[in-house]
Amino acid sequence: MTKMDKNLEKAQIFIECLPYVQKFYGKTIVVKYGGNAMINEDLKEAVFRDLILMNLVGIRTVLVHGGGPDIEDYLNRLDIKSDFKSGLRVTDDAVMETVSMVLVGKVNQHTVSELNRLGGKAVGLSGKDGAMLKCTKKYAKVEDENGLHAVDIGMVGEVESVDCTLINNLLNDMYIPVIAPIGTDEEGQTYNVNADIAAGKIAAALGAMKLFLLTDVEGLYRDFSDKSSLISHLSTDEVNDLMKQGAVKKGMIPKLESCVNAIYGGVQNVHIIDGRVPHSLLLELFTDSGVGTMLTKGESHVCSE
Amino acid sequence: MTKMDKNLEKAQIFIECLPYVQKFYGKTIVVKYGGNAMINEDLKEAVFRDLILMNLVGIRTVLVHGGGPDIEDYLNRLDIKSDFKSGLRVTDDAVMETVSMVLVGKVNQHTVSELNRLGGKAVGLSGKDGAMLKCTKKYAKVEDENGLHAVDIGMVGEVESVDCTLINNLLNDMYIPVIAPIGTDEEGQTYNVNADIAAGKIAAALGAMKLFLLTDVEGLYRDFSDKSSLISHLSTDEVNDLMKQGAVKKGMIPKLESCVNAIYGGVQNVHIIDGRVPHSLLLELFTDSGVGTMLTKGESHVCSE
Amino acid sequence: MTKMDKNLEKAQIFIECLPYVQKFYGKTIVVKYGGNAMINEDLKEAVFRDLILMNLVGIRTVLVHGGGPDIEDYLNRLDIKSDFKSGLRVTDDAVMETVSMVLVGKVNQHTVSELNRLGGKAVGLSGKDGAMLKCTKKYAKVEDENGLHAVDIGMVGEVESVDCTLINNLLNDMYIPVIAPIGTDEEGQTYNVNADIAAGKIAAALGAMKLFLLTDVEGLYRDFSDKSSLISHLSTDEVNDLMKQGAVKKGMIPKLESCVNAIYGGVQNVHIIDGRVPHSLLLELFTDSGVGTMLTKGESHVCSE
Amino acid sequence: MTKMDKNLEKAQIFIECLPYVQKFYGKTIVVKYGGNAMINEDLKEAVFRDLILMNLVGIRTVLVHGGGPDIEDYLNRLDIKSDFKSGLRVTDDAVMETVSMVLVGKVNQHTVSELNRLGGKAVGLSGKDGAMLKCTKKYAKVEDENGLHAVDIGMVGEVESVDCTLINNLLNDMYIPVIAPIGTDEEGQTYNVNADIAAGKIAAALGAMKLFLLTDVEGLYRDFSDKSSLISHLSTDEVNDLMKQGAVKKGMIPKLESCVNAIYGGVQNVHIIDGRVPHSLLLELFTDSGVGTMLTKGESHVCSE
Amino acid sequence: MTKMDKNLEKAQIFIECLPYVQKFYGKTIVVKYGGNAMINEDLKEAVFRDLILMNLVGIRTVLVHGGGPDIEDYLNRLDIKSDFKSGLRVTDDAVMETVSMVLVGKVNQHTVSELNRLGGKAVGLSGKDGAMLKCTKKYAKVEDENGLHAVDIGMVGEVESVDCTLINNLLNDMYIPVIAPIGTDEEGQTYNVNADIAAGKIAAALGAMKLFLLTDVEGLYRDFSDKSSLISHLSTDEVNDLMKQGAVKKGMIPKLESCVNAIYGGVQNVHIIDGRVPHSLLLELFTDSGVGTMLTKGESHVCSE
Amino acid sequence: MTKMDKNLEKAQIFIECLPYVQKFYGKTIVVKYGGNAMINEDLKEAVFRDLILMNLVGIRTVLVHGGGPDIEDYLNRLDIKSDFKSGLRVTDDAVMETVSMVLVGKVNQHTVSELNRLGGKAVGLSGKDGAMLKCTKKYAKVEDENGLHAVDIGMVGEVESVDCTLINNLLNDMYIPVIAPIGTDEEGQTYNVNADIAAGKIAAALGAMKLFLLTDVEGLYRDFSDKSSLISHLSTDEVNDLMKQGAVKKGMIPKLESCVNAIYGGVQNVHIIDGRVPHSLLLELFTDSGVGTMLTKGESHVCSE
Repeated sequence: MTKMDKNLEKAQIFIECLPYVQKFYGKTIVVKYGGNAMINEDLKEAVFRDLILMNLVGIRTVLVHGGGPDIEDYLNRLDIKSDFKSGLRVTDDAVMETVSMVLVGKVNQHTVSELNRLGGKAVGLSGKDGAMLKCTKKYAKVEDENGLHAVDIGMVGEVESVDCTLINNLLNDMYIPVIAPIGTDEEGQTYNVNADIAAGKIAAALGAMKLFLLTDVEGLYRDFSDKSSLISHLSTDEVNDLMKQGAVKKGMIPKLESCVNAIYGGVQNVHIIDGRVPHSLLLELFTDSGVGTMLTKGESHVCSE
Repeated sequence: MTKMDKNLEKAQIFIECLPYVQKFYGKTIVVKYGGNAMINEDLKEAVFRDLILMNLVGIRTVLVHGGGPDIEDYLNRLDIKSDFKSGLRVTDDAVMETVSMVLVGKVNQHTVSELNRLGGKAVGLSGKDGAMLKCTKKYAKVEDENGLHAVDIGMVGEVESVDCTLINNLLNDMYIPVIAPIGTDEEGQTYNVNADIAAGKIAAALGAMKLFLLTDVEGLYRDFSDKSSLISHLSTDEVNDLMKQGAVKKGMIPKLESCVNAIYGGVQNVHIIDGRVPHSLLLELFTDSGVGTMLTKGESHVCSE
Repeated sequence: MTKMDKNLEKAQIFIECLPYVQKFYGKTIVVKYGGNAMINEDLKEAVFRDLILMNLVGIRTVLVHGGGPDIEDYLNRLDIKSDFKSGLRVTDDAVMETVSMVLVGKVNQHTVSELNRLGGKAVGLSGKDGAMLKCTKKYAKVEDENGLHAVDIGMVGEVESVDCTLINNLLNDMYIPVIAPIGTDEEGQTYNVNADIAAGKIAAALGAMKLFLLTDVEGLYRDFSDKSSLISHLSTDEVNDLMKQGAVKKGMIPKLESCVNAIYGGVQNVHIIDGRVPHSLLLELFTDSGVGTMLTKGESHVCSE
Repeated sequence: MTKMDKNLEKAQIFIECLPYVQKFYGKTIVVKYGGNAMINEDLKEAVFRDLILMNLVGIRTVLVHGGGPDIEDYLNRLDIKSDFKSGLRVTDDAVMETVSMVLVGKVNQHTVSELNRLGGKAVGLSGKDGAMLKCTKKYAKVEDENGLHAVDIGMVGEVESVDCTLINNLLNDMYIPVIAPIGTDEEGQTYNVNADIAAGKIAAALGAMKLFLLTDVEGLYRDFSDKSSLISHLSTDEVNDLMKQGAVKKGMIPKLESCVNAIYGGVQNVHIIDGRVPHSLLLELFTDSGVGTMLTKGESHVCSE
Repeated sequence: MTKMDKNLEKAQIFIECLPYVQKFYGKTIVVKYGGNAMINEDLKEAVFRDLILMNLVGIRTVLVHGGGPDIEDYLNRLDIKSDFKSGLRVTDDAVMETVSMVLVGKVNQHTVSELNRLGGKAVGLSGKDGAMLKCTKKYAKVEDENGLHAVDIGMVGEVESVDCTLINNLLNDMYIPVIAPIGTDEEGQTYNVNADIAAGKIAAALGAMKLFLLTDVEGLYRDFSDKSSLISHLSTDEVNDLMKQGAVKKGMIPKLESCVNAIYGGVQNVHIIDGRVPHSLLLELFTDSGVGTMLTKGESHVCSE
Repeated sequence: MTKMDKNLEKAQIFIECLPYVQKFYGKTIVVKYGGNAMINEDLKEAVFRDLILMNLVGIRTVLVHGGGPDIEDYLNRLDIKSDFKSGLRVTDDAVMETVSMVLVGKVNQHTVSELNRLGGKAVGLSGKDGAMLKCTKKYAKVEDENGLHAVDIGMVGEVESVDCTLINNLLNDMYIPVIAPIGTDEEGQTYNVNADIAAGKIAAALGAMKLFLLTDVEGLYRDFSDKSSLISHLSTDEVNDLMKQGAVKKGMIPKLESCVNAIYGGVQNVHIIDGRVPHSLLLELFTDSGVGTMLTKGESHVCSE
């Protein structure tokens, strides 16, 4: 195949994206990216290029990131101990300061820097900027000899409300807002917020069309011990059924709750996709290959809001 | 290759366009399309899809069309005779009315309709709308036994000025303006304008970055009888040399003069490309394959304006 | 009377228009003009001057035109046959192409050109521009030995909806939009739309204050064989009564239905006026002479929308 | 002549204004009206209607008024004495307070009220509002046994600068600003400003196309004792010659100086017209009858600014 | 105390205002100032400085003024007699003209001038400008041998509606509108409006947060003969009770009715404060000292609108 | 003194600020705050309140912060060694990451949080956001046995240009931008920038009226061993003289160079003030006490740009 033939093929492929580009033009899409999915440098650059392209073809693109491994690393280096209760990190002041430094001062800055280096226009924010993510304190539910009771786990935050003014101003100026999931309250307290939950709340508040959760798994399995049981499409009704049946891995539960809440909050679809596949965002948006699992609203659930 | 693999390849190719998309974002590009290049229906649809994609990825896209074959056809059907003098059609009132009807009422409307059908947002204009293309009468230069003298060839127009207000308003509202090369003057006369020249004048007036002339040839040849002498890059200096040497086919001369004038008027590059290659616009813009001939400003020529 | 005295009289008359100018300032008025009313050149120029003056004194002025005689003429010259069924022209592809060329490429362009020549700022549009007039196919109702049944009459269009974005953008920029009654649909089909109906639908969609139908009759007669029975004012209730009584000439029926629908759609008044009277638009708007027939909403009819 | 015929004639006359309306559309015109020209109630209403019509047909219309007779009347009623020095009223605090009350509280308010009653949108201002008219103290030049020397005449003001912000804001909101010629300075002093001079300065600052001075004379005479010597057109050069020749009545001198300065300041034409002719503004603007005297820029004078 | 120490104290005090400045930022406050409260020059300057500061720290500040003593003075000097009926001045044409001249031409202009001199940006208006205060005629209720009946008292106006367009335009441009309580109607009549009532109506129409009535008393007394019975806070319910009990001084009644109506019309608080205390506006707004009497909405009254 | 008397005094003091508030309204002021000046919590809150008040009274307020002590602390805790060369910290990747985390993730976030808690509207930025601070690598000039030569000290940045778009967008939306002095380049490298220099460059790029450097000294001394030699006012000429004379403490030299460059870059005044004095910003802006040292432009130096 000559170079010209190859380029003709490229142009052909580019034009095949047209209906998809038209479909998403002017819509808002929130992408959550973090944790283990964020480790491989090549994949990371592929994700960033996808985001920039999404932005350029007219999608209002927002990135919310986590930062698990880096936090772990720094807590160790700083010799700060931190327990987990019911899957939530007990967050005292020392932990909170480390989390904030790593998320905002390292991961967020690195992400902004890479997006700008690759030709994007990115601005880093935390939920404290413009008092965007208003939180209340979250307690762990622990069951012991005294029965089920709430346990104080420090500065872990429940998102109460999202002020979208600042995000929308930046989107209108064609920036990609990159958001670290740190929350605040009226007293200026700092809260550690689960990135999936933050992304879901932000997507709902923005009236986003889609929320993408980039993970390091293929998607959701009907039976997580059986790789062939990958689910490509799921309603919120079915999610609730799966959770009742105990078919969902523990670590997946808060992620799924966030997905369901985002959909109840008005997001059209939530996609759990495999961040280990290069350009999985483009694949999902601009080809007919659905990657991972897509959630939509079921019939039996009414938005509680 | 599985479907997934194919889609991965697609995404990969899509992402390779990123630097090009970034480069042309927010720039104005005028495309001239017409005549024989416009005959094949499949190619036509490919061109229209290219234009819509250009528009969606942030290029301010303007289309100027011709309509030779259709005009010829209707003049025949209406039994209207029309001579040519020095390559210019003698345009009496009957011819002018037919030209206007075919260009504005058939070709322009058809083009707008197709762009809209394919998901674009197009608005048809002629140079009479908003008195956009102001013309004066053009005379043919004829050499006969009386020497070189000007001959009245009716309503053939020389573009004097372009009022871009209306075009810019439509571009700002995200429309693709589709322009038929019909001119006007203070007295409301109608003028038949060469589409290449109209496109060049409009590109210069808009401060366009590029002007594309979609033709039915591969590009410009150093020796037009030798297909292997295709020129990929040419300066305006060299164009003038070629024309002096008589190396340019007669029919190409007005096209080339329009190119040179567009560049002198501030357009960065003019591309003469082969409209018979599908998606040649995308190839030229979004791959490293230059198709056809690209003209840039030479050193020895200063813009006359 | 000296020249000065004459001019004093003129100024006096000009000032008498003041209350009318105040009344219509900033309001939208749609004028339908076409067919036989459009033949006389002097009258045409008078109408165009009226439109320009209306525009200058702050009326948002929209012109919708027909083009019957020119269409007839070209169908003949091109030797294209076309039947009528129940008063509607059977519109096959050849007829449709001719209609489009004549309306958009001849009548519309000529109108724009004349308005601009006389100092107006006009832009020509068809209902395909910006996909403004969305249509569905209309069938003729024919009664024969098989009873009443629908007959396919080709590309005759029923207006389903009007997208006013483009018209309003042009009105905000102080242009007079001049609209040819050609419709479209999602598949890019072209439709031949009755100009009276198009004008009524556009007036309703724009929330126009008034719709003027310029005709070549004096107005509506209570008994159309008796010239002295001219009706100066009529409610929609009475129109329906007249139609039931068979007092309305056949050719008038679609015109009247369009009037009634425009009023049900929110237009305050529809005026059927005699285009053969010079400056009849100014007479109607700026003097106390009502010319022709004014329709207003009756009590017994509720807008179906 | 039937009523219909009369109305046809009216419409015909209305349409004859079209070229004039087009010519003045969007231009700024300042009208100075006051003194004896303002006494007759019918004429006053005619002037107000002219102003409203001018505003409605797209002229940015500003009115500056004087108020001589009313001031005189109130000074008498309040038993306040006031001398004249070199034609300028000696303005002590008591005089100044009376002038301000009469101009701003009576004449201005009455004018605004009448314009609004007749359907206009007027807002009254003095030069103190928004600190619009910045003045310095003006001294009378008196010649006596001690030679020519400056004499303190109290709060008479020389206009130093005009801040057009407020006027332009009101014009953009479609109001007619009605301005009383009261000035101010940094210390908040109040100044009595000649209305002709104020109008000239405001017209120049606004970049007005025309300044109209409505007077109670027919215009300017070459020989003011000879009514047949009325001048219809005059250049600033000729004005200067006339003044050197002593051919100008004393009371006319400041008026003429203001005219000449307005033209030097960029106003295209200044018209001295006879306010006793009803609708003289409309006559001048919208017919071919020039009334009074029109001044234009001569060749030998260069704007001093 | 050194100068530095003093300045430190000043800065400390300035910063104590911060929460108050934050509270009122962007809110609208209407101040009524006039009559006897306006006599002392030093106090007047203090009030003006307060208004300018309010404006600069982001409060949309509107001033409505009265002018009793000046009106009295001029009526005397002009030898115009004017009776009072039920506390309302009988306002014939001569009185009305004097009132207008004094309020608009003297008090308003003086106020604007002083505000500008002190560095503010003020524009003077009357209720006639932009036809802002639309009134109907008010009759006095007189009880005599014929019982209670309405008596014609001339041009005294009842405010029917307030057109806030002009005021809001000026506030958006950062001006302080200074409004004289003169009203108008469709016929262009001039009305004398009570300044307290005008201020209340304007405050309600603007959706003001607060209305301040600057008076020459300390506030409202529970028993007006007992200075120690000053009321600091009062609900509209209690006002109605007080009025029923006859505990309110006659001159206070229209003031109180205006207060109650303003609150019913949507104003949050009305403050009757002692204009004889320097900077009482700042005291009320920016310290914890409430001065005078604050009215809020009671429970038993529902806004009639 | 009663509470009322105290409040009267407060109001009096508040009003004394009026001329200062008027002077700075709408102007841009950049404040640099950091290092030792930032340690005391009470002083910090006082500074933040000053900034919020400045913002509310209409000053476009930008904060640039440093973070020395926190950086030192974390480098120690993480056991990262870092030398100094010619007073500049050698910044390898490990140091750079720590600096970024502390400045952006701790100090900046804490500052934003405090400003928001106190009622301000703050948004945190680093120079990487929107690629605001474009840097090149800075080398230390070291003199040793090989003479004066440049030494690589890692990621220490020289500010090449400042893109103010993002800052201005935030200022227009009434936010206080809080900027950490981290720079970037086209390759996405991260640079450690001296906070004084960053503040100077940002102030110049914004066209700021003033730059405040909050320090932990009283100001600049003519002889730094003699506390009585504090300089209250200094021209850039004198600064250069002082530096030549060696009268400036070594640590002060980059600070002073930044001051001089800011003034050459167009900032009107730079103030070096004592951050240990509470509300020193308010003292400097709103009283007649100049605190610390004010620099202005001298005559002999021309801006190099």
